[in-house]
Formats: sequence, C-alpha cells, structure tokens
Amino acid sequence: MNLSRTATLGEIGEFPLIAAITEKVSLGADVRVGPGDDAAVLAIGDAVVMSVDVLVEGVHFRRDWSEARDVGRRAVAVNVADIEAMGARATGLLVGFSAPKDLPVGWVLDFADGLTYESQAAGVSLLGGDVTRARDITVAVTALGSLEGRNPVLRSGARPGDLVAIHGRLGWAAAGLAVLGRGFRSPRVLVEAHRVPQVGYGAGADAARAGATSMIDISDGLLADLGHVARASHVLIDLGRDAFELAEPLHAVAAATGADPYTFVFTGGEDHALAATFPALDAVPAGWLVIGAVGTADDDRPQVLVDGAVWEAPAGFDHFRS
Amino acid sequence: MNLSRTATLGEIGEFPLIAAITEKVSLGADVRVGPGDDAAVLAIGDAVVMSVDVLVEGVHFRRDWSEARDVGRRAVAVNVADIEAMGARATGLLVGFSAPKDLPVGWVLDFADGLTYESQAAGVSLLGGDVTRARDITVAVTALGSLEGRNPVLRSGARPGDLVAIHGRLGWAAAGLAVLGRGFRSPRVLVEAHRVPQVGYGAGADAARAGATSMIDISDGLLADLGHVARASHVLIDLGRDAFELAEPLHAVAAATGADPYTFVFTGGEDHALAATFPALDAVPAGWLVIGAVGTADDDRPQVLVDGAVWEAPAGFDHFRS
Repeated sequence: MNLSRTATLGEIGEFPLIAAITEKVSLGADVRVGPGDDAAVLAIGDAVVMSVDVLVEGVHFRRDWSEARDVGRRAVAVNVADIEAMGARATGLLVGFSAPKDLPVGWVLDFADGLTYESQAAGVSLLGGDVTRARDITVAVTALGSLEGRNPVLRSGARPGDLVAIHGRLGWAAAGLAVLGRGFRSPRVLVEAHRVPQVGYGAGADAARAGATSMIDISDGLLADLGHVARASHVLIDLGRDAFELAEPLHAVAAATGADPYTFVFTGGEDHALAATFPALDAVPAGWLVIGAVGTADDDRPQVLVDGAVWEAPAGFDHFRS
Repeated sequence: MNLSRTATLGEIGEFPLIAAITEKVSLGADVRVGPGDDAAVLAIGDAVVMSVDVLVEGVHFRRDWSEARDVGRRAVAVNVADIEAMGARATGLLVGFSAPKDLPVGWVLDFADGLTYESQAAGVSLLGGDVTRARDITVAVTALGSLEGRNPVLRSGARPGDLVAIHGRLGWAAAGLAVLGRGFRSPRVLVEAHRVPQVGYGAGADAARAGATSMIDISDGLLADLGHVARASHVLIDLGRDAFELAEPLHAVAAATGADPYTFVFTGGEDHALAATFPALDAVPAGWLVIGAVGTADDDRPQVLVDGAVWEAPAGFDHFRS
C-alpha cells in the first residue's frame, strides 16, 4: 500500500496505517497466527517468558534527538534485553502504539521500519499490536521468549563465591544523553548509544547455558540493578573499579562536562548490557568481562560496593521523582 | 506497605508504588516467575495466544466518568475478551502503566484493586509490568492464553451455511457513553456497561469446544467486526433484526435521544461480546443467541447485511478519524 508520508494520522485513519505497518512483517517458523486476528498464536516449548516496556515521548525520547527509525529499533532492543536477562531466546513481539492525530504518516512508517530491522537482528517475529490515539507518542512493547528447556536465570540466584560479569557497554547511553542535553551531537558513538542501545542478542542464553546463577538487564544503572540482585539473593556484591576499561569517548565527555567518567559507568542507565553471576572463572563465557565478586552480606544487609566502599552518588533512576 | 493515598506519584516514587501494587497479586498454578524479575515465566501448553490493548485517558476513559477501579477492571476485561475470541483460556497479564507525576497514589491503588478483582474473576494471573511517567494515564495490557490443545478459532473460518451467534450484550456501552455525553448518569446499568464491559469468561473456550468455525471480539461494533469476519472468510453475512431482543434501557435512551435503538446494537463498540459462526443449530452452546446466517459472497464481495440490505449508518470506530 502506498501512503502519503506527509499525510497525518487523522487524514489516513487507523486501518490503512495498520495495513502499511503489517505488510512488511516477516514471521518466524514458530508463529501460528500473526497480525490480523484478535490475538497472535505462538508455538513455544514448555515455558513462556514475557515482559513489557513502555517508551514515552518526552520521557524516554525526544523527536528532535532521535529519528523515528531509532525509536522503533530501541523499542525492540530494550524489550528483548529483558528476555535475554532471563536466559531465554526472544521469539515474538506485540506493539501497543499510541500517537496524536497530527503525527505525519512518514514518522510511523520509519518507526515501523526500525521495528522490523531490529526484530530481524534479534531474530523475533512481530506478532501484532494495538493502535490508538494519545497526546504523546507512547510505545508499549511486549516481548515473549522461550527457555528451550532451561531453567530461568533469576535475580535471586547469586551465591557467595560467585564472580560478577557484564556483557555489553556501560555509561555510553547516559554520556550520549548528557551530550545531547548540552546541545551537542558528538561524540557521535555516544549519541547513537542513547538512540539505540546495542544489545548482545544471544548473550543471555549463552550465559544460561554456561551456568549463570543470576542475571539482570542493566536498564537503570549498574549499581541500581545489581542492588536488585544483591537484595533478591541476600548477598554482598563488591565491584573492582579497575576492572573497567574506560572507552575514550567517555573520557572526552567527562573531561568536557567536569564529571567523573565512572559516574557514567556505575550509574548511567539505558545501555541494556547484561550483568550475571557465575560460579567460577572458567564458567564465564567469551565476550563477558569479570567486574567483581559475590560475598556474604554482613548482618544480612545486602548491598553493592565499589572497591569495598559505598559509591557516593545517585544510584539510579526513578520515573516519578526525576 | 502503607502509602498515603493523597500523596502524588512524584512524592512517593516508582519503587514504593510498584511494591504496593504487586503485594496483592495472587498467582495461578501455571506461573513459574511472577512480578519482580526482568520478565515473567508462564508454563503453558503447546501454543501461546497473546494480545495487547491500550487504554488512554481522554480517549477511552475520562477520570470524571469512570472510577479508577473501573478503569482497572476494564483494562483486564477488554484484553481477556481478545483471548476468548481465539477460543483460548486466558492465563496471564502484563500491565504497562504510564501516568503523570501529580496523580494521587490513591487513584493508582484503586486502579490496582480493579485489576486484581477482574483478574480473579477472569481466572488470570497478574504477571508483571512496567511503570513510567507520561502526560496522560495510559494502560497497555498484554494478555496471554492457552489453547489447551485446541486449534485457534480464527476470523477466516466462516463457511456458507454456518449460523452466526453472539454471546453478551450489544449497544449497552455505546448507549451509556451517549448518556454520559449528555450530562446524565442514568440509566445506571448502561453507564456501568460503558465503565466495565461484562465479558463472559469461558464463553470463547466453550464455543471452540462446540466447533465454532470463526470468532471475533466485538470491540468496534457488530457490523464493523463481522465485516472483518466476512472479508477474512470471503463470505456474506446476513443478520436478522428481529433476532435481537432490545433491552428496556436501550429503548429508553433511544427515545430520549431520538436515536434508532438498533444503531446502538449494530454499531456501538466496547461491549466486548463475542460473535462466532457455528456449522449447525445444535452446535450453538447455551448462552449464545443466533442472529443470522453465513452465505456465499456475490461476485466475491464479502459484506454484512441486515435483513438482506446494507445498513445505512457509520459502521465503526476509527481511532484517528473520530
């Protein structure tokens, strides 16, 4: 279907929009019913993993800072990261899309392109969704995954003696946001890291097969999210600052803004790296970086330390208090 | 956890809010991991049915016309209706909740009460969700269901000779909305039908077991939604106006507003009744009302008629054009 890209949603209406979005969808072999019925049907093994994430214009993205395609890619990536963090393989997505009437159709088509591109990169099928009107663009993506017979890797499984390792980048998205907030567009790699997180598809299932005892998606910041692991597992987590190699662009932004570059690494959110614990060094898969160890929580006080001390800085992001 | 009901979301923050909502959640036997990890895990048969619906303040509900509890109940009901319409049993829900900072905590607690109440009525488990900030309250609910070994009942399976039947009320929600739009609060049963649709939980699975050939959730209006069935099945659907018994409150509202009461029945959305086709009268389960028959589409023109003629009226709802 050929839609005018400059027409608005109010001009073309709901159903032509849905048709234009769904005609490009490609479905995996495990999809029994895709878009177009009351619900989608997925043939999946013995257990289904599912998670939802919501992206809101003005909160998670700005139309002047991110292209529509980037918003679509990001919506897929952040949701698949949650499925990865359970040690599962993501298989399907549903998209709840809300937008104002005066949004140009071209924006939605580019957004759908981004959804499609990143879904193929992640190996998941777009199964359907819901389209409705709203004042702000709001994207609610639900991801489904299969454990392929494995047990889920929970936040509560870390044990004293385990090693802590991460897969992926930390602090890049936060540094990119800091750059954009000051009116700059470079270093470009950081700005792009804010626009589309680089999720290591398959790394979560790799970690599960390797025997990871706990795992989490780092969305709010490393210290905040490992705090969830420490509390769920009733352990102490101690990280070594020297384990991290700071990338050159992080140094550059830190120098330009007067910030400690480690603040980005320890408290920056939205990179969607994975953090996991492993029972021994030889269990840590290739591509993972060991950053610390799990110990016994003193007086049953679970916490996360850096080189044995509390990190003095805001430790994460709260959606209503920021 | 005791939260001040008059505190705002900005004052209490995201995590205490989530804790207050999830502490009341009860989980079904098929839930392996509920709220609190990166994703939920559900043990389900050989195929998973899933659907998402989004409710937006100012579009689907107004805070002065619906209590928070009703919005929560409705969010569950409309999503479970989609799972029912596939002939499946709904088992789990994820809720993506967005709201402004200045929303009183009490509203969210009442909303969560409604979610919990209706989930128990529908026999589904609340599995988790995402909470974020937005200008308007936006509720994106994803429902999952199990086919319990049956085939899904699609929109495309209606065949000439089948009978068309419905389960549930039609026109009540639209009549309730018409009443509210004129500043009235009665007939109360209609206003309540707008606030919380009465979904016949289990009716979809009953129809599937009875051999329904096609089925759809009536969300946009009977003629609009049966139009989807007619096109997907390449058939003609002919309804009999006299098959419907008009409830007294519909007569009253029609008389008061000068409307034809059948306009509510044929074009009113949001009651979430089910429409299905059955191969014979003795296959129609108890509780279903036969309203028409399936015929061959002339010149391959699938359509829905009333007493053999096109119904002259707006046939459904478009989110961006209304």
